[in-house]
Amino acid sequence: MATKRDRLTDTEIGAALASLPGWRRDGERIRRDFEFKDFVAALGFIAQVGALAERADHHPELTNVYNKVTIALSTHDAGGITAMDTALATEISARVPV
Amino acid sequence: MATKRDRLTDTEIGAALASLPGWRRDGERIRRDFEFKDFVAALGFIAQVGALAERADHHPELTNVYNKVTIALSTHDAGGITAMDTALATEISARVPV
Amino acid sequence: MATKRDRLTDTEIGAALASLPGWRRDGERIRRDFEFKDFVAALGFIAQVGALAERADHHPELTNVYNKVTIALSTHDAGGITAMDTALATEISARVPV
Amino acid sequence: MATKRDRLTDTEIGAALASLPGWRRDGERIRRDFEFKDFVAALGFIAQVGALAERADHHPELTNVYNKVTIALSTHDAGGITAMDTALATEISARVPV
Repeated sequence: MATKRDRLTDTEIGAALASLPGWRRDGERIRRDFEFKDFVAALGFIAQVGALAERADHHPELTNVYNKVTIALSTHDAGGITAMDTALATEISARVPV
Repeated sequence: MATKRDRLTDTEIGAALASLPGWRRDGERIRRDFEFKDFVAALGFIAQVGALAERADHHPELTNVYNKVTIALSTHDAGGITAMDTALATEISARVPV
Repeated sequence: MATKRDRLTDTEIGAALASLPGWRRDGERIRRDFEFKDFVAALGFIAQVGALAERADHHPELTNVYNKVTIALSTHDAGGITAMDTALATEISARVPV
Repeated sequence: MATKRDRLTDTEIGAALASLPGWRRDGERIRRDFEFKDFVAALGFIAQVGALAERADHHPELTNVYNKVTIALSTHDAGGITAMDTALATEISARVPV
């Protein structure tokens, strides 16, 4: 039976990305670039991502330069992209100010 | 000459609060209650308030319970409310998601 | 059978506090005052407490004034102090710089 | 007259790095890798770095993967490394738990 820790197939990843605007596949990761009005807004986003990641016990690769944040998600143990990545991507996307 | 560290008069405080929706006077402080969609959103706000406060070298009294945050501002050295408080209140207000 | 969401007895609370230096009982809460070298250090602690709380899905009452942070823990649904509070208190205590 | 926004010479950079354990030169940046006990500790560090950066109005390039954080500092306007970078590096270093 498939679990959330199993690697998704290319078809499954494509289907998941269709519901994740801004996210793209980058090899064995999914990745999105975020841009905020300034550094302080980016920092508020990072704090939220951190709490969501700790709650999920699944942590992103995160890069920040001033008002820009890039998040990359992959499941190390599975050697690829799993439902844990797409679930966290969905939660993170909900934190972007509209 | 008035500086930003001088206590504001009651008239000046009233005028400042007129441009600060949600803020009210509470004795020698100004105070506002914020409510967010959940704890994570409140935490993102707190991180932003922290960076703004450190930048201004002026720090609020902050209380958080789950999705609620209360901020109180006062200028200890002046023994009351100054332009530093109303300026930081303005900056903090701009961080609330609409 | 006792669960982590059951109210602890006075005896159990006393026993738990014996292993939680700095924490004291305050009615139906446990509480500790923390002091850091400056506001930035307090903010780093708050960010950590936030992530731990979100992970535990159990959130403190938190107050911050400059380099001081007070944390109070209680389990609302149980109407008192439970093992969730003492567990989170233990985790929070481990985040204080020595 | 030299200002904190002037590019440092190679000699000046070498002298500054001698007092900044763990920092190394990487072309037109200075860089340090930090490792913490876990993600939560890394997050607490990031929150502190964010507040320090906002206070200095000078922001790092920051990367985080689980318990690891890398900070790179450069002064864009100067096209290289300035006293703003070495000053912020000193402040950031003081935030690492011993």
